[in-house]
Amino acid sequence: MRMANGLCVAAVGIAAAAVAGPSAKANDDVMKQTSNPNQWAIQTGDYANTRYSKLNQINRDNVKGLTVSWTFSTGVLRGHEGGPLVIGDTMYVHTPFPNIVYALDLSKDAKIIWKYEPKQDPATIPVMCCDTVNRGVAYADGMIFLSQADTAVVALDAKTGKEIWKAVNGDPKKGETNTATVLPVKDKIIVGISGAEFGVRGHVTAYDMKTGKRVWRAYSIGPDDEMIVDPEKTMSLGKPIGKDSSLKTWTGDQWKTGGGSTWGWYSYDPNLDLIYYGTANPSTWNPVQRAGPDGKPIDQKWTMSIFARHPDNGMAAWIYQMTPFDEWDYDGINEMILADIDVGGKQRQTLVHFDRNGLGYTLDRKTGELLVAEKYDPAVNWTTGVVMDKSSPQFGRPQVVSKYSTFQNGQDVNTKGVCPAALGSKDQQPASFSPDTKLFYVPTNHVCMDYEPFKVSYTAGQPYVGATLSMYPAPGSHGGMGNFIAWDAGKGKIVWSKAEPFSVWSGALTTAGGIVCYGTLEGYFKCLDQKDGKELYKFKTPSGVIGNVMTYMNGGKQYIAVYSGVGGWAGIGLAAGLTNPNDGLGAVGGYAGLKNYTNLGGSLTVFALPG
Amino acid sequence: MRMANGLCVAAVGIAAAAVAGPSAKANDDVMKQTSNPNQWAIQTGDYANTRYSKLNQINRDNVKGLTVSWTFSTGVLRGHEGGPLVIGDTMYVHTPFPNIVYALDLSKDAKIIWKYEPKQDPATIPVMCCDTVNRGVAYADGMIFLSQADTAVVALDAKTGKEIWKAVNGDPKKGETNTATVLPVKDKIIVGISGAEFGVRGHVTAYDMKTGKRVWRAYSIGPDDEMIVDPEKTMSLGKPIGKDSSLKTWTGDQWKTGGGSTWGWYSYDPNLDLIYYGTANPSTWNPVQRAGPDGKPIDQKWTMSIFARHPDNGMAAWIYQMTPFDEWDYDGINEMILADIDVGGKQRQTLVHFDRNGLGYTLDRKTGELLVAEKYDPAVNWTTGVVMDKSSPQFGRPQVVSKYSTFQNGQDVNTKGVCPAALGSKDQQPASFSPDTKLFYVPTNHVCMDYEPFKVSYTAGQPYVGATLSMYPAPGSHGGMGNFIAWDAGKGKIVWSKAEPFSVWSGALTTAGGIVCYGTLEGYFKCLDQKDGKELYKFKTPSGVIGNVMTYMNGGKQYIAVYSGVGGWAGIGLAAGLTNPNDGLGAVGGYAGLKNYTNLGGSLTVFALPG
Repeated sequence: MRMANGLCVAAVGIAAAAVAGPSAKANDDVMKQTSNPNQWAIQTGDYANTRYSKLNQINRDNVKGLTVSWTFSTGVLRGHEGGPLVIGDTMYVHTPFPNIVYALDLSKDAKIIWKYEPKQDPATIPVMCCDTVNRGVAYADGMIFLSQADTAVVALDAKTGKEIWKAVNGDPKKGETNTATVLPVKDKIIVGISGAEFGVRGHVTAYDMKTGKRVWRAYSIGPDDEMIVDPEKTMSLGKPIGKDSSLKTWTGDQWKTGGGSTWGWYSYDPNLDLIYYGTANPSTWNPVQRAGPDGKPIDQKWTMSIFARHPDNGMAAWIYQMTPFDEWDYDGINEMILADIDVGGKQRQTLVHFDRNGLGYTLDRKTGELLVAEKYDPAVNWTTGVVMDKSSPQFGRPQVVSKYSTFQNGQDVNTKGVCPAALGSKDQQPASFSPDTKLFYVPTNHVCMDYEPFKVSYTAGQPYVGATLSMYPAPGSHGGMGNFIAWDAGKGKIVWSKAEPFSVWSGALTTAGGIVCYGTLEGYFKCLDQKDGKELYKFKTPSGVIGNVMTYMNGGKQYIAVYSGVGGWAGIGLAAGLTNPNDGLGAVGGYAGLKNYTNLGGSLTVFALPG
Repeated sequence: MRMANGLCVAAVGIAAAAVAGPSAKANDDVMKQTSNPNQWAIQTGDYANTRYSKLNQINRDNVKGLTVSWTFSTGVLRGHEGGPLVIGDTMYVHTPFPNIVYALDLSKDAKIIWKYEPKQDPATIPVMCCDTVNRGVAYADGMIFLSQADTAVVALDAKTGKEIWKAVNGDPKKGETNTATVLPVKDKIIVGISGAEFGVRGHVTAYDMKTGKRVWRAYSIGPDDEMIVDPEKTMSLGKPIGKDSSLKTWTGDQWKTGGGSTWGWYSYDPNLDLIYYGTANPSTWNPVQRAGPDGKPIDQKWTMSIFARHPDNGMAAWIYQMTPFDEWDYDGINEMILADIDVGGKQRQTLVHFDRNGLGYTLDRKTGELLVAEKYDPAVNWTTGVVMDKSSPQFGRPQVVSKYSTFQNGQDVNTKGVCPAALGSKDQQPASFSPDTKLFYVPTNHVCMDYEPFKVSYTAGQPYVGATLSMYPAPGSHGGMGNFIAWDAGKGKIVWSKAEPFSVWSGALTTAGGIVCYGTLEGYFKCLDQKDGKELYKFKTPSGVIGNVMTYMNGGKQYIAVYSGVGGWAGIGLAAGLTNPNDGLGAVGGYAGLKNYTNLGGSLTVFALPG
């Protein structure tokens, strides 16, 4: 067969893309910026959310000599989640509410190039369930994208800080807010929403990157068309989800205020052309109120689920629900890390997810096939584990221990000693994957709770929680509230674990230098050896660290940077000045000891080797 | 002559004290604590206010290798003046309003031992003329002494932070506040007051250290008995001040709201048993309103004056007025440094004072004899200098240049180009004296102003300023707003000068290591060589530095510490979010560029050599 050279080349190109290269439509700029290890272009480091850097100037041998290179106060108190970005010589720093963004000139001693300070109604603050955090901005195509607390999504000129467009994604008066970053994918900006504690029905929305025009919106729960699912083609555990897969699992109209918000991290596989994210808890936290018409548990699909969607039109490829009929607020929004690893002797294209419910999941990211589901926190006691027998009707479902079932124990009964606590064995703090060790490095909570559901009625914009909580360190263990672990996701096993006095609420970084770094709530920045968890370096930053560690190279020198600024759900007692142990959705009690170590204060600490 | 042995020894002891040793009544504990170079027991480092440390582990040869050892966020935004104290293994850290005090355990990684947070009415904040700063706590006899913004003076148990006593020194409703530290002297706590911009009549008060009971109060202006002066024995420029020395220099009752507040630094000479301090400007800033009955300038004694008083009863030994009939707000509260230096070939017991008016004064601290008065800022243009001819009736008085006389130019006339600006060639930022070089190291402002007086009437608790100002860099110079200088106080000459882009609003530290360190408003911490001003080290702290550098030794290692947290009069634009150039009593305009360098945020940065 003869054909024109051009056509032949094009055909080869498409074939290659389908196998190994990026889709022809993927955002070339994001791919380009994130593939440059000198930079950090999106919060997750790369589309796969590995938080791994190829930089190795700082390594396991010399990291002990790390020193603070420079620092920068953000001018804002309360919790600083997320991290800075670096594009070329410019660093972009963000703050919690009021969501200021700074551009700093790294070639001029971090002089401030521009500052963007949105005007937001302070009435948004009390509608934010768990501190005024924001998980940072994203860069693509010469723009900085910010999702504000009040749900406004803003595109800024990265050079000048001038607003290019602004879209309104929700309404704080109805309890809709946002704390998440956005993900630029292809020609779109993917944005989630917070507010399951206010009865918000969660959704993911795609905005046109150039204009801010809304392209599609996919709800987590409700009618098939509003969820953008195909009953025949959208799969779950190898089967089509079928018609009204969500509506069938709710009593009456409860889905309309049913939660399933989408405030976590988003990943993207350019080859499969799929975005991945998790949905949050069903509303309210009182499971008795959410029982089926027969008074029995009912799944409340698709809360607590991993979604794989096509970014062009939002169509769901597959869904997997981790915690049907949640009874503990085991919100499923934690990050999805895309990594190709060995599972059962076979190299697989996996998605690895450390769920709030204490189970580490490994799935085939193309099909949603469940490969591994094992406890990554030894404290977990609410379940005996997930049924892995594909022939069982219970396949893929966690088996609930009656003693810890807040539903079975009933409304107004205090179920004691449930592990993990509502903030999970891990919360938003992202793990990191090192392709060198093929291990996942996971900042975890080691916290249990007493949980007492109570009846609550829905009023728009008012808390719709329906449970009182008390949280405390997991008993009979090292006495602390956290562990930093290395995890083999192919086997579902902890490789090593380092005890921490408080939850590790900071995101981890791995590098080609063989180190893994994270921060602690007391304020330490630490780097460990990826191999064995040995602590190689630590430094006390000004405030507790709940930010995510990142790295960049400038002027031939590698830097590692992290925000400090205590807060978030774990630090809400300090951040909001709460002292009653059951306040802050129960976090205050367990973390009260933090006041002996640190204070509020947002700043950036940047480390480098001397000289 | 025969006498009992005991009597003989006692007599010798007293004689020795009068010549070289401390007075028998001096506070033994303060003497002991401040003589231990491992510690920093009072804000000024020692009674003489030298801010010099004998520690030399960090020195001119190795300071380039300094690294940040640890950091601590105070949890408070706005301006952080003063510095931490160290007693043994405990560091005491304070904040601006609400004046929190932390005790940190240096043997346990700076874990918080206790936190004291006074309850103060936020209505005090708008009555503070120039940011919500506080210049720190003092230690003596197992107690920490705090003077709050609302004028409450509190004694805390240094071990537990429990309140031992509390005294009320003034009334914020009348504009009385405090920003100064206190000085423990013998069995008393010496306390000043702020509020000359609100028509407060300044005074110094002594409280009993054990009980908080008021022992004496000496006003800066008014009747002789209220000032605690002896018309025959209190001297000024070698002559008794005479009867009604203050009252005679005011028109009518103006002295009753006449200012002369006392918010600066206090020094003490245990041998002479004299405390030293300066008094602030007369109220209002409109000189026309303060003219004598004949319409001519009148001195408004004893505003703008250095006082030497006996701590036991407050009696004034001598007074020297630097700026009679102030027309520019050249407030005289800057520190008095007590040092024995060569003046005109003779070793003298001097007091050295860098006044807001731009003149560096050297006096005999026993008699108040004026030895030297020279410009320490090349920009100074309001005066041709001080008359030094003792036979002249003008002896000791600065000669005013008519062009820059805001009085001669008149009310509602904008007098342009006066140098220095109202915040002086130096403000509260304390200089340091090195006994090794016999030089003074002075953080200075290099700022000029336009000044327009206007008529204002007095209402208790309302601003009583009476002038609008605009401040800007001194023209025709290096373009910056500050210099850090080395000063020969015997000769009245600048030895070297290092230009800074903004006023150096941070207090200096000299050490036996041959270095001098200070901070800058953009946020740099710097160490220079005492000999030639060569910059040996710099580091960008999280926020602009207006705190005072201190040093201590712990576990055999020398540390240097400084607060960052931009604010104060120079940084009021950032601290209070002011943007109108003439706001902040005119500071905002000149310092507007600070926003390109730094943000609010209180924290401590502690430096040490590596290893």
